[in-house]
Amino acid sequence: MIIVMKDEQTAQAVVTQAKSRQLNHVYRFKNRVGFAEIKTRADLSFINQADVVEMIAEHPAAMQVSRTFHPNDTVIQTAHSQIGGDNFNLIAGPDAIESADHVLTMGKFAQAAGATILRGGSYKPRTNPYSFQGLGEQGLKWHRAAADALGMDMMTEIMSPADVDLVGQYTDIFQVGTRNMQNFALLKAVGKQAKPVLLKRGMSATVDEWLSAAEYIASEGNTQIILMERGIRSFDQKYLRNTMDVSVIPVLRELTHLPILADPSHAAGVAEHVTATGLAAVAAGAQGLMIEIHDQPTKAWVDGKQALTPEQMINLFVKAQAIHDIVR
Amino acid sequence: MIIVMKDEQTAQAVVTQAKSRQLNHVYRFKNRVGFAEIKTRADLSFINQADVVEMIAEHPAAMQVSRTFHPNDTVIQTAHSQIGGDNFNLIAGPDAIESADHVLTMGKFAQAAGATILRGGSYKPRTNPYSFQGLGEQGLKWHRAAADALGMDMMTEIMSPADVDLVGQYTDIFQVGTRNMQNFALLKAVGKQAKPVLLKRGMSATVDEWLSAAEYIASEGNTQIILMERGIRSFDQKYLRNTMDVSVIPVLRELTHLPILADPSHAAGVAEHVTATGLAAVAAGAQGLMIEIHDQPTKAWVDGKQALTPEQMINLFVKAQAIHDIVR
Amino acid sequence: MIIVMKDEQTAQAVVTQAKSRQLNHVYRFKNRVGFAEIKTRADLSFINQADVVEMIAEHPAAMQVSRTFHPNDTVIQTAHSQIGGDNFNLIAGPDAIESADHVLTMGKFAQAAGATILRGGSYKPRTNPYSFQGLGEQGLKWHRAAADALGMDMMTEIMSPADVDLVGQYTDIFQVGTRNMQNFALLKAVGKQAKPVLLKRGMSATVDEWLSAAEYIASEGNTQIILMERGIRSFDQKYLRNTMDVSVIPVLRELTHLPILADPSHAAGVAEHVTATGLAAVAAGAQGLMIEIHDQPTKAWVDGKQALTPEQMINLFVKAQAIHDIVR
Amino acid sequence: MIIVMKDEQTAQAVVTQAKSRQLNHVYRFKNRVGFAEIKTRADLSFINQADVVEMIAEHPAAMQVSRTFHPNDTVIQTAHSQIGGDNFNLIAGPDAIESADHVLTMGKFAQAAGATILRGGSYKPRTNPYSFQGLGEQGLKWHRAAADALGMDMMTEIMSPADVDLVGQYTDIFQVGTRNMQNFALLKAVGKQAKPVLLKRGMSATVDEWLSAAEYIASEGNTQIILMERGIRSFDQKYLRNTMDVSVIPVLRELTHLPILADPSHAAGVAEHVTATGLAAVAAGAQGLMIEIHDQPTKAWVDGKQALTPEQMINLFVKAQAIHDIVR
Repeated sequence: MIIVMKDEQTAQAVVTQAKSRQLNHVYRFKNRVGFAEIKTRADLSFINQADVVEMIAEHPAAMQVSRTFHPNDTVIQTAHSQIGGDNFNLIAGPDAIESADHVLTMGKFAQAAGATILRGGSYKPRTNPYSFQGLGEQGLKWHRAAADALGMDMMTEIMSPADVDLVGQYTDIFQVGTRNMQNFALLKAVGKQAKPVLLKRGMSATVDEWLSAAEYIASEGNTQIILMERGIRSFDQKYLRNTMDVSVIPVLRELTHLPILADPSHAAGVAEHVTATGLAAVAAGAQGLMIEIHDQPTKAWVDGKQALTPEQMINLFVKAQAIHDIVR
Repeated sequence: MIIVMKDEQTAQAVVTQAKSRQLNHVYRFKNRVGFAEIKTRADLSFINQADVVEMIAEHPAAMQVSRTFHPNDTVIQTAHSQIGGDNFNLIAGPDAIESADHVLTMGKFAQAAGATILRGGSYKPRTNPYSFQGLGEQGLKWHRAAADALGMDMMTEIMSPADVDLVGQYTDIFQVGTRNMQNFALLKAVGKQAKPVLLKRGMSATVDEWLSAAEYIASEGNTQIILMERGIRSFDQKYLRNTMDVSVIPVLRELTHLPILADPSHAAGVAEHVTATGLAAVAAGAQGLMIEIHDQPTKAWVDGKQALTPEQMINLFVKAQAIHDIVR
Repeated sequence: MIIVMKDEQTAQAVVTQAKSRQLNHVYRFKNRVGFAEIKTRADLSFINQADVVEMIAEHPAAMQVSRTFHPNDTVIQTAHSQIGGDNFNLIAGPDAIESADHVLTMGKFAQAAGATILRGGSYKPRTNPYSFQGLGEQGLKWHRAAADALGMDMMTEIMSPADVDLVGQYTDIFQVGTRNMQNFALLKAVGKQAKPVLLKRGMSATVDEWLSAAEYIASEGNTQIILMERGIRSFDQKYLRNTMDVSVIPVLRELTHLPILADPSHAAGVAEHVTATGLAAVAAGAQGLMIEIHDQPTKAWVDGKQALTPEQMINLFVKAQAIHDIVR
Repeated sequence: MIIVMKDEQTAQAVVTQAKSRQLNHVYRFKNRVGFAEIKTRADLSFINQADVVEMIAEHPAAMQVSRTFHPNDTVIQTAHSQIGGDNFNLIAGPDAIESADHVLTMGKFAQAAGATILRGGSYKPRTNPYSFQGLGEQGLKWHRAAADALGMDMMTEIMSPADVDLVGQYTDIFQVGTRNMQNFALLKAVGKQAKPVLLKRGMSATVDEWLSAAEYIASEGNTQIILMERGIRSFDQKYLRNTMDVSVIPVLRELTHLPILADPSHAAGVAEHVTATGLAAVAAGAQGLMIEIHDQPTKAWVDGKQALTPEQMINLFVKAQAIHDIVR
């Protein structure tokens, strides 16, 4: 249940009253108060009806992340980026951190192409347990050093609640991967941090499941959440690793105030198709792109066949920016 | 098996020899000869090896429609349109033909927005047998008259081999719908016509199935084929009617020389999301768009909720053209 | 809208009145009258309320095939089989008719294993246009002769409305294949015949789409319809050709009165898994099975790798019968 | 690479040598030695070829869990159950632990119906963050007490590596849920335990992904793994919550030696269809079933609409046992 009050003051008063009545999960955005656990008006009879503009029983699966509760676009401010709203963000970097030099070189290319966020994995979710699993803390250090040297934000994947403190000492943005979209312990753990969280969509997650996963993070107090579409499971595994679900982007723009970015590298699975896939997402309304780059894709430690070269990245980013200017 | 000969002359000689040996399904494109039924070199020992540049055993599922057989983009020429290659085509019109006036009015709007092809259904594939099934020949007449009055190409759906002659008296382009993508009798029937065929992708058709369906048309002699992506079955039926599969577009551009257009009206299912979905397809490389329009969507006889108003169409087409200029 | 009248007589009177008022698509089953095009009570004010037991506005997508309209199981009677209700039917035969001898031999094996219906294709829906497309009328003749010699029902696939008359001269049961589930012209054509129609589910057809396709047949007057689940499109094409959707079987048993059989040969795609897949469908409530057999699977003209040998068929049918006895 | 040696002794010698050469991930099953990271014969030149029966380069995605490495069925022995091989296991209990009395009562019913494993959740993975999340340790205590009182095995879900020690103090079998199938940190954590792990399939996990997830557990030393099919994402959300993928069961029986059980409660989503769905899985070769029960389903704290009553459970288990006797 969402209650639209006549102003922020009366809204805050409702929150205060609700807490004194031991109601849980009560949130406020400007003059709106959201009761995540309450669905009937009777439970809210303590509210002065004269101050109420509207009572909204229906909202999408997850309350705090819905536009019904929070009509304006969320804009997330980091040291070097503004994410969401009319901004357009570029994130690039190697799939895996390989060395101090390599991540710095990749960062320079990324920055020159317009990226403000340097991505790279030190903890890698590999399908095969015997594959390289990332450099761990050593990778985080090199990654941090490169981001600092360049004046970029650092973003890296977190795979376990136990790693939150360590990774949090280095990264600016936590990335939660596809396989962990409904790893609720992890979502709660990053929900307790004061840093933005980028939440990738699960392989075949519905909109409601995805928004509810975001709500897990918000329910712990962290509302700096970025959604990332990365392609859904396809029935044609011969030619398509995943299908970039552009159709979900305008749907999400309507339902949620959170920024929605796209990852064409994983959606396409092969470098040849990353550009077309990425531009499609931007045309559909994505507020930014994340891509994997490598100066020598065939020598990349992980997923080299989907990495763009720096030149390919520049081509993609120039076109992406031009398309964003058309559609925003 | 595809044989690349040193020139067109020797290629034609191979075709002539093959036919004299009773070989079936032998096709030529410039200096290439394709043997649709032959997979081993031994069967082709009659060919003078001195004239052979290359023998290609591997090609995608369907030979004639593959780029291996036919490297250049196909460009289809109709009275008012050039479809394929670097061209960008706009197709618009009402879902169902409703009256002589209405299709003419819609055609004027479409043409003013840049469309050269006027679509509209007189034979409607409805899920429910008791729903309106189209006006039949009366609709075809009004549709033809409007196209003639405006100097546009007419395109309409054909649902049965028995209707080919009648529909063929009116239309410039045959449309084969999603549900009939593997209606092989229908594909053969339109394959015998001398008019272009637009072939929509089946609800969950793989690339190989789709290309093979196109090959059915080509196998009867008609190679004027246009492919149209129209959204694939989604697992999230709450928010998404279909998912526009932008990922398939660059894959097809690589595998086939046929033009690939997109239908965002059916992919989106609701007017609010048609624009974003259509622009995404263009950014991914679609060589044109088809949309449904209606001046009074709520009064449309069929599928009104996915119809754009003329104003919305103009907005979409202007942006689509601008994006096509960036990506082509 | 379905109206439950107090008895068959008053129900028939309602039908007569409705027709005199030019109402279309009015059907009766015992004391129930179904109005396929009417959704509001106001339009039915001519009915004497004193004779009405219940007015039912809600029913599944398709009226005539729903249990709401027709509560009892449909049982279809052919010369040699009773299909539906508590009966359990076995259908077997070669994928394609190959010769008079071969179909007769296969028929003998099938009959010995308990089958009463002899299947076989003379018109084959092949993905590749250059593949063998069936023997046509010659195949129908051999098939008919074998069925007559053995005292079995003949069932064969029909692919085009134009073939209905010819095929109808031979077959006892028309089969409409997966790719034609929404070939509405074909559905209407077999809907005009006085012979049972077996309707396979489309590759990714929803329940509503499938029942509505059946309703197309019923809407033309033919209510002798058998539904056949044959596996749905899988996202794991490496190991699974299709996924036998056992979950749909109890759903259909609830929603429709039509018999529901299963085709494990196409669902499994490889002989090794046909038995497990077929038994699963029976345990889920399928009222019969159809399988493909061949005495020399590696030499079968079509789809040999999914054909069971006669011995494997016997093993499957014995177990299927035993499981049906447990679950019915 | 898997090397079949002439006997167990020479196989063990190879393992010893490999370790002295710092080779990682070398495993032995009887006379077979598996090298998880090695794919070329050159790296194994130290092996005495005279003792080698066969070198197998190809095996399914995950080595240790494959039948190529471990041809015999794994049979897992717990205090009260033998799981796998020709055994047939029944697991039942409430979705969530509600009280000491309730879990004991449910356990009595389950045991009377033939179950040897008592399931129940004290840590619940809920889509909505504001839904009841389980009683935590209090639930574990009541669950343990009931299992001890009845002489049953206790099985409960684990959602975070941080909970492994605590949950491990109580449970006999760890359950890893659908949403955590690729939570690699969790898989590694339970892989270090000396207790069996039941691993549910992800919502749309491929066979390779599922087997590789199992291999994560095995790679840490724990090979007591049970696979559980629980229904895959369906495209028909109106009538089907999930689709029980019976087709995967015979595929897995071929590829892996691990026991494969099925969960019809989650696959069906509604009690009415649990029995049909569960029997289908058994007929397809599942080596056991897990179901949710409740004496008053409408009052269940979680997922009451899919819970069977004790009477329905008995009916299902009796038929399941009979079908298992037919197909094993």
